Amino acid sequence: MIKINENYFKLQASYLFSEIAARVNAFQKENPGKKIIRLGIGDVTLALPKVCIDAFHKAVDEMADDNTFKGYGPEQGYLFLREKISDYDYKTRGVSISPDEIFVSDGAKCDTGNIQEIFSTDTKIAIPDPVYPVYLDTNVMAGRTGEYKNGRYENIIYLQGTKENGFVPDLPDTDVDLIYLCFPNNPTGVVATFDLLNNWVDYARKNKSVILYDAAYEAFIQDDALPRTIYEIEGAKEVAIEFRSYSKTAGFTGTRCAYTVVPKECRAYDSSEKKHLLHGLWNRRQCTKFNGVSYPVQKAAEAVYSDKGLVQVKKLIDYYMKNAALIRKEMTSLGYECVGGLNSPYIWIDSKMDSWDFFNLLLNKAGVVCTPGSGFGACGDGYIRISAFNSYENVKKAVNLIKKTLK
Amino acid sequence: MIKINENYFKLQASYLFSEIAARVNAFQKENPGKKIIRLGIGDVTLALPKVCIDAFHKAVDEMADDNTFKGYGPEQGYLFLREKISDYDYKTRGVSISPDEIFVSDGAKCDTGNIQEIFSTDTKIAIPDPVYPVYLDTNVMAGRTGEYKNGRYENIIYLQGTKENGFVPDLPDTDVDLIYLCFPNNPTGVVATFDLLNNWVDYARKNKSVILYDAAYEAFIQDDALPRTIYEIEGAKEVAIEFRSYSKTAGFTGTRCAYTVVPKECRAYDSSEKKHLLHGLWNRRQCTKFNGVSYPVQKAAEAVYSDKGLVQVKKLIDYYMKNAALIRKEMTSLGYECVGGLNSPYIWIDSKMDSWDFFNLLLNKAGVVCTPGSGFGACGDGYIRISAFNSYENVKKAVNLIKKTLK
Repeated sequence: MIKINENYFKLQASYLFSEIAARVNAFQKENPGKKIIRLGIGDVTLALPKVCIDAFHKAVDEMADDNTFKGYGPEQGYLFLREKISDYDYKTRGVSISPDEIFVSDGAKCDTGNIQEIFSTDTKIAIPDPVYPVYLDTNVMAGRTGEYKNGRYENIIYLQGTKENGFVPDLPDTDVDLIYLCFPNNPTGVVATFDLLNNWVDYARKNKSVILYDAAYEAFIQDDALPRTIYEIEGAKEVAIEFRSYSKTAGFTGTRCAYTVVPKECRAYDSSEKKHLLHGLWNRRQCTKFNGVSYPVQKAAEAVYSDKGLVQVKKLIDYYMKNAALIRKEMTSLGYECVGGLNSPYIWIDSKMDSWDFFNLLLNKAGVVCTPGSGFGACGDGYIRISAFNSYENVKKAVNLIKKTLK
Repeated sequence: MIKINENYFKLQASYLFSEIAARVNAFQKENPGKKIIRLGIGDVTLALPKVCIDAFHKAVDEMADDNTFKGYGPEQGYLFLREKISDYDYKTRGVSISPDEIFVSDGAKCDTGNIQEIFSTDTKIAIPDPVYPVYLDTNVMAGRTGEYKNGRYENIIYLQGTKENGFVPDLPDTDVDLIYLCFPNNPTGVVATFDLLNNWVDYARKNKSVILYDAAYEAFIQDDALPRTIYEIEGAKEVAIEFRSYSKTAGFTGTRCAYTVVPKECRAYDSSEKKHLLHGLWNRRQCTKFNGVSYPVQKAAEAVYSDKGLVQVKKLIDYYMKNAALIRKEMTSLGYECVGGLNSPYIWIDSKMDSWDFFNLLLNKAGVVCTPGSGFGACGDGYIRISAFNSYENVKKAVNLIKKTLK
């Protein structure tokens, strides 16, 4: 008799963003004329940069001719893109990451969700709270947690972000094997300093742990004194895997391209404590279960690193950061405490009431969609996340509608 | 201390097609001038159909304008594509599959690799031999097998395809929970009749099993008397998940689009033998770990179902089938026994020697790449697969080079 993976029973309700979509759809159905402004899911709204469009078209034309047609590409991604990543995202920061340490994929969600497969089932995991729900949910599905009780899964070490620690979790006082970090953080928008990352890398080296470093929002960092990659920290290559994405950087949420860096010296151990390198494991995982990213999409991503591309991408980021500044300013002036929004497109707001209640209030009264903080973990209850991804006009409208609702 | 997933140690050498690529690259390095004809990996070589190119460009243009730009799409795929699939791939065969039973993805490799996640770890699995290696390898990684001994993994029921049964495995004489089937078969090219699938569906209903039906090569079926989908069999929706792909159908190997059908009545059980529906589980898996297929790629796939698209795709298939006929005819006239090639782009050939020896012989003497049958399982030893995916000119050349080598 075929049996299901019963770990799925432990999952709480539906995936956060599906739940939001369902509530918004229900509201829209009941209020068919009503205009809704979405500052919820964190989806970009501006067109792809022109350089990307041009490269995209050119690559589609290559697919139209037998002589230039591309069939299966390398599972790890084309060298033309991996070389650019190595040069522009790492070498410019004084970091040496070789192209073959870079694995191009169709999304950081897939990569941060799939990476746990290469680790043992009995791995002790530390996950920030609040944080992007994929880290936790994929480990629940894989059976690494116990039951869900009082807002928490058994067998998970929660790294708590609270008002007291400025939403930057302290190091755990116990041994953990696998640590998820996300900076600039989703949802709080807080960033990691060199000191902080130094402490984590030291911890991971001392405890023989691995850090999964989600840097999907790296492009929004404005402060030059902040690290842009965890590999700016000495010794990080031995202990850290980094995730990046073009989704927010260059507007690729609907185009799909991202990458994961597994340095060749990054290590883990077998049950007899013998050291193994993770690069080969992830390569095997990708070769067996993945078939590479669409060729025209990789060409569009490559264009991000052209001279024009760098300018156009910066313009996109600046646009959203102007939105972020407006949201932060107005919510603060309404008397709401905010973090984030300075080096991140997300503003994390103390809602002074239950998260979903505040979500419902903004949806029903203002027609504005935010994300309830409790969807990111127990520490997120009483908070909401507002995203800067929309047109400036819509953000201005949304802020005014929120003002009317909350005043 | 972070521990690796030691199931990876059980995997044999590297993934088949990576190993072939490595050998071909080594040969090319030693013989830099030598022209190599690739009839190995089964990768298409003809340009995308013109309708797909046009739709692709149009969708890229939508991404260039804020007003038509698409961000995150539905994880399950856009309705415009799922409706076409429902209408053209199923309704035309008298089968009712609703759009929301269809999950669009970036490849059948990903889907057939990931689907095992929704089943229990102690599932008893039946896998054909020979067959596409992904089914087995992904279950090895997930810990569903024992060690590899004498060419076989413990805890796997192998469905043996041999000359005696015409490479169409018999039903197992024991209870199995999860059955992988692939028709038209990769690598043998043999097909399933209505009678055969009826027997399997009966078996699955009686034994409360689930069938994973890989129909990636369905478009190559020429014989009208053959089923095109497992759902043409009564009762199949309760027990079968079907996988399809645009890779071989429409030349999408480098463009990446596929889909999986999980009918709403398809069921499995929990440990107390209570029935559960798989549709919700797969939906949850996809929503949590996947972010949908690139919008322009889905628009290109949709174009396959236009009037012109149907004609252009048929032309592609006919072209490759002419190649297949030539390969089958010439190999037969050289005294090699062949199956496949009639309703499939693959010809399965008794090599009368060790598979890898024959592979090396064709590579080194003829400069032709085939796929060693042993890479598809122990029953494949002594066989090779030749693929019809290349230009007619190259296939003719390859066949002549093979003739010279083998005569």
